[in-house]
Amino acid sequence: MNQARRGRPRDAQVDERVLRTAAGLLLERGYNGLSIDEVAERAGVAKTTLYRRWPTKDHLAVAVVARLQDDDGIDDTGDIRRDLTDYMEKIADALNRMRSAGRTAGRDDRSAGVVAELVAAGARHDDIGEMGRQVYARRNALALGLIERARLRGELRADLDAAVLLDQLAGALYYRVLVTGAPVDRAYAERLVAAALDGAMNRKEIPPCP
Amino acid sequence: MNQARRGRPRDAQVDERVLRTAAGLLLERGYNGLSIDEVAERAGVAKTTLYRRWPTKDHLAVAVVARLQDDDGIDDTGDIRRDLTDYMEKIADALNRMRSAGRTAGRDDRSAGVVAELVAAGARHDDIGEMGRQVYARRNALALGLIERARLRGELRADLDAAVLLDQLAGALYYRVLVTGAPVDRAYAERLVAAALDGAMNRKEIPPCP
Repeated sequence: MNQARRGRPRDAQVDERVLRTAAGLLLERGYNGLSIDEVAERAGVAKTTLYRRWPTKDHLAVAVVARLQDDDGIDDTGDIRRDLTDYMEKIADALNRMRSAGRTAGRDDRSAGVVAELVAAGARHDDIGEMGRQVYARRNALALGLIERARLRGELRADLDAAVLLDQLAGALYYRVLVTGAPVDRAYAERLVAAALDGAMNRKEIPPCP
Repeated sequence: MNQARRGRPRDAQVDERVLRTAAGLLLERGYNGLSIDEVAERAGVAKTTLYRRWPTKDHLAVAVVARLQDDDGIDDTGDIRRDLTDYMEKIADALNRMRSAGRTAGRDDRSAGVVAELVAAGARHDDIGEMGRQVYARRNALALGLIERARLRGELRADLDAAVLLDQLAGALYYRVLVTGAPVDRAYAERLVAAALDGAMNRKEIPPCP
């Protein structure tokens, strides 16, 4: 971030240090292991400063995830199948990192872990829910741009329902992590994108010319 | 349920009464308003009986949702577009019921409400997570049967990835409720099923015969 353009550079540096420290603690110990007091101590920042900025642990955790997620860009190579697969793999990796944060049960562990705690925090506190939805809106705007460019160059159908396409793709990943407990990885991202692009209906064969 | 075929008819009746009472309380007051003690009193059942069967409120809530969900059948009319739309509408209705349980904020309320609490309960307690996954596995088995019959009669493509199709459909609904806060209803179910069946890729025109 360009500090000259930012009004309060010193605050931004403190925020950055706090969020980096909190991210480390959250990923290492999980939701229960995150504590505002410990983040304050590790980051060398006064507790009061932290509590003024993030009144509860839920607020701090959502800010951490917003920051991690905003680091994820989306590549546009001009091949929508590849770009969407790469993007779904990124989301899957981020979900897996949060899902296993602070847990030691390994690959058989089907709990949604921190992902579920964040979702519940957003449902309990309206302001946290609103923060979370803004994070997703920013990410979705990038993805909608990618899809729109593919539509304009004729890769995707002209009458595409882009919002539903994104719901189907990201939704399948979240559903597996939060609800069915199934794994998400590169191989699944490939199956998912293929299904969404190609559709489930049986295509009629092209009739032979007479 | 046929009592002659069931080993412990009296317990089954008690379970039924408790779950019906708990469902009423959960839908009326939301997650915070559900209390094992009050369910015991309203259902006229000893608290110890309830605690023996459902050790925590989380356990009781998941059992309630399992029962509500098992009431939802899936119709097979032979038209997969219609059947999947009806089915997605049913899931949307159930999610909306849980989402708004105990909340008074009306249609602008974007919180996931009880849906998020249930997901978090499943992530926190391995046994509850496992119960939840079994509920979804039962429901998915019905839906997979519907999809397989449509595939066999040629409505759906022969090489269909049925599990991914279900993830895409149900996943989009849960994603909107749990993550983006967007509404789910009949109109959305129609858009969703159309997108999943028709696919996002631009179809090449059939070339004219020479």
